[in-house]
Amino acid sequence: MPFNSLEELRAACIDLPAGDDAAAAAVARRQDTLTKPRGSLGRLEEIAGWLARWQGRAMPRLDRVKVLVFAGNHGVTAQGVSAYPAEVTVQMVANFAGGGAAINQLARVAGAELDVIPLDLDRPTGDFTQGPAMDDAAFLAAVSAGYDAVTQDLDLVCLGEMGIGNTTPAAALSTALFGGGAERWTGRGTGVDDAGLKRKIAAIDAGLRRNAAALSDPLKLAAALGGRELAAIFGAALAARRRKVPVLLDGFVCTAAVAPLARLHAGGLAHTLAGHVSAEAGHRNLLEALALAPLLDLGMRLGEGSGACLAVGVVRSALECHARMASFAEAGVSEK
Amino acid sequence: MPFNSLEELRAACIDLPAGDDAAAAAVARRQDTLTKPRGSLGRLEEIAGWLARWQGRAMPRLDRVKVLVFAGNHGVTAQGVSAYPAEVTVQMVANFAGGGAAINQLARVAGAELDVIPLDLDRPTGDFTQGPAMDDAAFLAAVSAGYDAVTQDLDLVCLGEMGIGNTTPAAALSTALFGGGAERWTGRGTGVDDAGLKRKIAAIDAGLRRNAAALSDPLKLAAALGGRELAAIFGAALAARRRKVPVLLDGFVCTAAVAPLARLHAGGLAHTLAGHVSAEAGHRNLLEALALAPLLDLGMRLGEGSGACLAVGVVRSALECHARMASFAEAGVSEK
Repeated sequence: MPFNSLEELRAACIDLPAGDDAAAAAVARRQDTLTKPRGSLGRLEEIAGWLARWQGRAMPRLDRVKVLVFAGNHGVTAQGVSAYPAEVTVQMVANFAGGGAAINQLARVAGAELDVIPLDLDRPTGDFTQGPAMDDAAFLAAVSAGYDAVTQDLDLVCLGEMGIGNTTPAAALSTALFGGGAERWTGRGTGVDDAGLKRKIAAIDAGLRRNAAALSDPLKLAAALGGRELAAIFGAALAARRRKVPVLLDGFVCTAAVAPLARLHAGGLAHTLAGHVSAEAGHRNLLEALALAPLLDLGMRLGEGSGACLAVGVVRSALECHARMASFAEAGVSEK
Repeated sequence: MPFNSLEELRAACIDLPAGDDAAAAAVARRQDTLTKPRGSLGRLEEIAGWLARWQGRAMPRLDRVKVLVFAGNHGVTAQGVSAYPAEVTVQMVANFAGGGAAINQLARVAGAELDVIPLDLDRPTGDFTQGPAMDDAAFLAAVSAGYDAVTQDLDLVCLGEMGIGNTTPAAALSTALFGGGAERWTGRGTGVDDAGLKRKIAAIDAGLRRNAAALSDPLKLAAALGGRELAAIFGAALAARRRKVPVLLDGFVCTAAVAPLARLHAGGLAHTLAGHVSAEAGHRNLLEALALAPLLDLGMRLGEGSGACLAVGVVRSALECHARMASFAEAGVSEK
């Protein structure tokens, strides 16, 4: 297991490798020779440089793109925070295996491999209104599972999750990290009614009170208020940074899961791009708090890595333009 | 030639076929059975219904997707309205043929065929500060070229353009159709400086004065202030409606080119989606004026159909989710 204590994990989070400035500069130089007005491909030009910087390659590649979907169950569902029963998590994992979920279709269109990693679905985390969701051992095991899932041979990874009830821990983490009250971060998830929304907010308030001692430490609060799939996403984002794999983030739960990394290291999320901003209420606020500008804004709120995976097409397009466009000189096109 | 007079063309624009409500309703019914919270795929669900409505198929398809790039030259370049010399239009058409432009890469990623249709590049339109850009015959020939380019066997078409100087006619059309002064619609195009921006606004003001008699008629003003590639895009959008081919619009020039159709028929653009909103200043205003919500917002301002083509990946993803996801019953997943 890569991390056997919170302090080992903390050290890895603080000692993050920097990006490759020379590779990014090479991309910028080439972009300015290509047959288009300078800057006219907008964020596609930025994406090409981002790939180069975090892959550490002047000419990036996207031969191996993987979608990692981590699944977990949550004790806090006892508080009536989800519109769906908790059994749906394991049923959806079976649906992923059978190829019937949205992420199966999106991964195929994106030319991405899909790995689904269920995390102790028969052992939900503790109900955080009653105590910490996870002890250190459970948290570190989940972080380590995520860490091990990101291998050095990948060129891009999309991080996603499935876990009935998990917008509640995501909102709890966001409230603990960024303040402003639970209302600012709590939405309807898969579709709770007004009463369900009140129950979510009450559960988060109770969870913050019950776990007050953990709130000053980003890792301890991730254990106390998070969930296994959130911890695994955190571990995967950390591994990606250390193994030179750029990351596309998905929606609210995924972004909340990686937010502690930004608290432990000011540039801790520089190797990530937000694939989209979801319709879940807190996501736009969370992206703003993290200074992440989403690539897509299509009213999606499904999770499963769906928004991240949809953005792979934009990233592929950016790279193809960068790698294969002709220069002004090659094409015999007059400059300004 | 499909249209031999403005009145024949006007009649075709007014007598537009309606969409297939039954096909769209079938999509909505199926969406609500698929393994996801209702509505959680956001605009992907809307796109599936839009494809069905305008293809007239309960199960839409995307076997043949085409990008049409029309190219034209503009007499108004004599007023110093572009950062690039007019010879670049023909040079870029050669670059398209050689596979070196951005749209070549984007079309390949999107799985789309690319057709580039140059329109009398050796005969620029008239300088609209001095008189009409086109007489009726030249305008109808260009509209007809666009009309003939959209064949019934296509499942989706992306409309794009190349034409040095053509953000000036686009801004002139927008000013004439929607008012508010030329400043509201005029941007830097491929990158003019402040003096160039002033020259663009002055040229538009002069063009509107010189062609005042044409401004009350959407077709006459498209001839007087537009350009061949804009007229062809107008014709292509009209043909697409009549031949059941949904349309993805590109940026400012493309959107301005089709705007007269919305003036001739209140639902004239219902079969179109805005692929993106560009960084060209007037485009966001123009989309708002036409009540078109863009799929992408990535700071692009290249033209060539690039923003429309980039959105094909989103449309393909929408269809694959719709066509191939499992239902709750098929997957054995519990509902709310």
